[in-house]
Amino acid sequence: MIKAGIIGATGYVGGELARLLNYHPQAEVAVLASRSGDGGLYGAVARNFKHTDYVCCGDKIEEVAEKCDVVFLALPHGEAVKTVTESVLKKTKIIDLGADFRLKDVAVYEKWYQTEHTAKNLLDEAVYGLCEINRESVKNARIVANPGCYTTCSILSFYPLLKEGIIDAESIIIDAKSGVSGAGKSPDNLYCDTNENFKAYKIASHRHTPEIEEQLSYAADEEVVLTFTPHLVPMNRGILATGYARLKKNVDYTEVKGVYEKYYGKEYFVRLMDEGVFPETKWVRGSNFTDIGFALDERTNRIVVVGALDNIVKGAAGQAIQNMNILFGADEKTGLDYVPMSI
Amino acid sequence: MIKAGIIGATGYVGGELARLLNYHPQAEVAVLASRSGDGGLYGAVARNFKHTDYVCCGDKIEEVAEKCDVVFLALPHGEAVKTVTESVLKKTKIIDLGADFRLKDVAVYEKWYQTEHTAKNLLDEAVYGLCEINRESVKNARIVANPGCYTTCSILSFYPLLKEGIIDAESIIIDAKSGVSGAGKSPDNLYCDTNENFKAYKIASHRHTPEIEEQLSYAADEEVVLTFTPHLVPMNRGILATGYARLKKNVDYTEVKGVYEKYYGKEYFVRLMDEGVFPETKWVRGSNFTDIGFALDERTNRIVVVGALDNIVKGAAGQAIQNMNILFGADEKTGLDYVPMSI
Amino acid sequence: MIKAGIIGATGYVGGELARLLNYHPQAEVAVLASRSGDGGLYGAVARNFKHTDYVCCGDKIEEVAEKCDVVFLALPHGEAVKTVTESVLKKTKIIDLGADFRLKDVAVYEKWYQTEHTAKNLLDEAVYGLCEINRESVKNARIVANPGCYTTCSILSFYPLLKEGIIDAESIIIDAKSGVSGAGKSPDNLYCDTNENFKAYKIASHRHTPEIEEQLSYAADEEVVLTFTPHLVPMNRGILATGYARLKKNVDYTEVKGVYEKYYGKEYFVRLMDEGVFPETKWVRGSNFTDIGFALDERTNRIVVVGALDNIVKGAAGQAIQNMNILFGADEKTGLDYVPMSI
Amino acid sequence: MIKAGIIGATGYVGGELARLLNYHPQAEVAVLASRSGDGGLYGAVARNFKHTDYVCCGDKIEEVAEKCDVVFLALPHGEAVKTVTESVLKKTKIIDLGADFRLKDVAVYEKWYQTEHTAKNLLDEAVYGLCEINRESVKNARIVANPGCYTTCSILSFYPLLKEGIIDAESIIIDAKSGVSGAGKSPDNLYCDTNENFKAYKIASHRHTPEIEEQLSYAADEEVVLTFTPHLVPMNRGILATGYARLKKNVDYTEVKGVYEKYYGKEYFVRLMDEGVFPETKWVRGSNFTDIGFALDERTNRIVVVGALDNIVKGAAGQAIQNMNILFGADEKTGLDYVPMSI
Repeated sequence: MIKAGIIGATGYVGGELARLLNYHPQAEVAVLASRSGDGGLYGAVARNFKHTDYVCCGDKIEEVAEKCDVVFLALPHGEAVKTVTESVLKKTKIIDLGADFRLKDVAVYEKWYQTEHTAKNLLDEAVYGLCEINRESVKNARIVANPGCYTTCSILSFYPLLKEGIIDAESIIIDAKSGVSGAGKSPDNLYCDTNENFKAYKIASHRHTPEIEEQLSYAADEEVVLTFTPHLVPMNRGILATGYARLKKNVDYTEVKGVYEKYYGKEYFVRLMDEGVFPETKWVRGSNFTDIGFALDERTNRIVVVGALDNIVKGAAGQAIQNMNILFGADEKTGLDYVPMSI
Repeated sequence: MIKAGIIGATGYVGGELARLLNYHPQAEVAVLASRSGDGGLYGAVARNFKHTDYVCCGDKIEEVAEKCDVVFLALPHGEAVKTVTESVLKKTKIIDLGADFRLKDVAVYEKWYQTEHTAKNLLDEAVYGLCEINRESVKNARIVANPGCYTTCSILSFYPLLKEGIIDAESIIIDAKSGVSGAGKSPDNLYCDTNENFKAYKIASHRHTPEIEEQLSYAADEEVVLTFTPHLVPMNRGILATGYARLKKNVDYTEVKGVYEKYYGKEYFVRLMDEGVFPETKWVRGSNFTDIGFALDERTNRIVVVGALDNIVKGAAGQAIQNMNILFGADEKTGLDYVPMSI
Repeated sequence: MIKAGIIGATGYVGGELARLLNYHPQAEVAVLASRSGDGGLYGAVARNFKHTDYVCCGDKIEEVAEKCDVVFLALPHGEAVKTVTESVLKKTKIIDLGADFRLKDVAVYEKWYQTEHTAKNLLDEAVYGLCEINRESVKNARIVANPGCYTTCSILSFYPLLKEGIIDAESIIIDAKSGVSGAGKSPDNLYCDTNENFKAYKIASHRHTPEIEEQLSYAADEEVVLTFTPHLVPMNRGILATGYARLKKNVDYTEVKGVYEKYYGKEYFVRLMDEGVFPETKWVRGSNFTDIGFALDERTNRIVVVGALDNIVKGAAGQAIQNMNILFGADEKTGLDYVPMSI
Repeated sequence: MIKAGIIGATGYVGGELARLLNYHPQAEVAVLASRSGDGGLYGAVARNFKHTDYVCCGDKIEEVAEKCDVVFLALPHGEAVKTVTESVLKKTKIIDLGADFRLKDVAVYEKWYQTEHTAKNLLDEAVYGLCEINRESVKNARIVANPGCYTTCSILSFYPLLKEGIIDAESIIIDAKSGVSGAGKSPDNLYCDTNENFKAYKIASHRHTPEIEEQLSYAADEEVVLTFTPHLVPMNRGILATGYARLKKNVDYTEVKGVYEKYYGKEYFVRLMDEGVFPETKWVRGSNFTDIGFALDERTNRIVVVGALDNIVKGAAGQAIQNMNILFGADEKTGLDYVPMSI
């Protein structure tokens, strides 16, 4: 059994990691840790775990690392760089669900996060854990930088199109919509202020933008600069990203579908929709799937790509466990092979 | 592997049965059937199953029974009596999720359902499948009448109190609230008419009333007649039942808690809340748990009991699978041991 | 024009007062005040007011009172007693939307609110502003104690039944359900923790209990002690109270309907449902109406009464304006005569 | 008093027209008509009108026209062309809330609606009632074609930019999101299938596309062809349209803001957001306002425009009443001057 630890266990993502690991046939929850953890019952805080005897302890990384084969960090951005050290990495693997190790370009990181990166050496070795694209590199990583939720959805939607040079790399616009759990337990999202409301936020300034650009630039083999707009949907879970780009080639639906199949035809966790069918967040809820559909807008020579995933599963905890499976040589879908909970 | 069939596979409950059985380690989905099933892909209708190769066939019971060790009927009330015959029962076990076999008293059935019961002989042998109370009888049943959602929640809440004679059997009031999936795919529940709305319905006339009364009368060993009011909550899943009764005995919190522990202390799927904590539907969502908490209202000498469950899991598909586990000698929690999905 | 001031203008109730007063033909918003008000635009905080030139100033009561004929206090419980003084009352009328002046019995107040009441003399003269019952007393009041939301709904539902001695005063149970705005801007109600969830809270201990009991005791002319259970519904607005009581007399539907008509037949803001029809919160949303329906449960000799209102209109800001209309001799429905916004 | 009739009074839009007209100081609801109307109480169907004595009669246009100065048609697309005749127009003004008279180009109509237009002569004289742009033409119209909801939001967002030649007319993408009431009472939108779900639909094929294009082409004085993607948001009301276009000129925020102010600075019902502030649907709910904000994405040389309105007020019933006010010489904001209901 893989002994897994979770630091930040009382947040939404930490709780989801615990929920999924609880039923994982090859892993066990060895440590649940949070800043305020004092050894009391985890089920007293996260009452969905009422029937378990898990406890929640303090979050001293050295102590956690000692007991675990892998430690998931579900912390606010900026915390992981302070937590992960060479000494820790001698004891355990790290899967970081925050942003600290995602961007390779330190200058870009420091510009968008407005803070100095204090672990540049580790940044070099960290592997960007978008499993469908980077699984080979993940296998031997000591630090996996688990991608962001918007990011995973956006990159998977556009990756084949850029790899195959089908679209104009300068023309990409991503209009993304997220359920509220993506924001964590923030007092900005009181029920009455969020319910029955729809809004855009951080227009042209959201920190997932450079992450998407960096990865898509690798795919395009040229610099990709794009417009990214996140929106908040009054629902708990789910991301839907609607992407737009100009077609560079004269292609029809079948050809483009073929391109997607080339990259994802054998990917269990990417489901390609049939023609005329588009993803909906309910069809992936609670699961690790990313659904992708597209249409060609002949009138404007654009492609419209729609991707959907569950932001705290494939967009966070699920992909982190998929990375764990890769790290430890398990089948990638172990403990993740759930049918989405459509209602 | 237990070969399981589902008739009515495209409804909410049928879909939930398929979802849960898909990951059940000792069962497999052998047949998915619906009235309009024509052998096409199930995932084309229920797109959460897009990654599977399940097909959906027609619902001829004889053909389904031939291929299955157990057949789940997720049909409108009144359909099961027409479907289940001696011939069918020779081929397979039946777990009926409708109301046709739940009430032992035919006169009560015919009064509340306003229709003649056409399978009275089978009614006699059908076992009421409230697992925590009737598991011994379920073991050898040919027909299991799976309890209603409101019913399961209400009975489990009051059963120990009546068994131990703590409350006045004439004083029971159950004020119950359900998520919308309980009503099935009914055009009565359009989004805009249901969202941001709360209402009571079928006051003093809901058909789960006699079902609760019959079972609680067995527990009380006297006739229980009670007031039951269902309400509709703008959410997909979950039932919360708030029950009221006069205390007959001079008891304190600890004594009453002891009574609940006597009956449920070893029940995996019943979780008793700590003093001052009351169930919330989110803590059981997607799971087979029933959470129960209570308070004593000293000023009025009443007990207030709160029970919560997921109406399509413990209130339907989950308990049906729990019954299947009992029927086939598997551990009751096999394939059902999920941590609730709290968000 | 009546010059109206609002202290606590940036809360949900304060904002609703401003919204309704803005279109009131005989009143004007003279002062919007809040603790953090600094003379900046109100529409910069409450962006629904973006098109107005209202400013939000500090909340010094003496200064506000100077400019207003009436001041609405939308403050946390315990603040009004510190704010209202003889000097203030010389300048303006006070309509307090908090609990400080609602209970006549100081001992009851101090027991339930766990604090000393520091303005007992004013408590004596404050008038309980449930308009349909107390309008005569309100006319000449200096301080109107505007009733709570649960309270208004509960009292209006039971008042005629107790006045006419139809029900057993000891048998009353009120199972009430509220939208989330009733809790104000509390971090307890984050979106993801509240959405898709239903729960009871403060069982047998909610502070609206003694308020309901005091008023219903006046109606019954005997002491009423009852069980009250509040619940939280995942929606912004609306209260639905389901009440239960034993019938003392042998009455039929028509007789009971006649009793309701005796008290409410001429009340514009109380709408009595037809037989078999029960209130839903959407039918009163955004309006000052209270809808009441009932059924007789012959099997148990109980009456089930259902009342519904919008918790921040009739349950707070609307009734406060209705009280203002009474205080200043305007038609009660002035500025309040809106058709509910059913979707 | 303007005597107003509503045909299609029991739909969402018809009900909203009745709700708003009920409090309009210069108009009265003279006729409420629907296909199934039989003279019974309107409040028995639309229970928010329970306190009124409105009746709902049959929908024979000649009879309705006889009694009204203006008749609002809230009918499915294709019905108005059959209803409006020269004879009817001799008796009354028509404000059509459907699509039949919106497109001037018959060929475009017939292509997108897949049906012959049977009232081409009337099409010529019908005036497109986007008040802020066409009010002069509306004044003397006999038929006003009330714009669609997505359309109003999209056109108002882009109109000044195209008039002033700031953006590339070929580069426009509109990613729009609507609450569910926009779809009317359709069984496609059952609660459980819509709640907690987000999806795109009719990608590159929604019928509002040519309507937006036609009007924006007038503004640009060249043909505008754009990509339009509608999405469904799990909420009752509200549209938010996020628009993207390439900047043709080297402009800064202040210059663009100046352009918007040139066109909307004196428009009561268009509110321009301050820099860094973007519209949210809750800030316009229940009101006739359109809020517009924008950001310049310097990295990509694009403008991102966000518009928001209430789809059944400014997007339907409210704008229709605004058109009525124009037709009858009343101040445009008469009966519409409500502060949005932010919660």
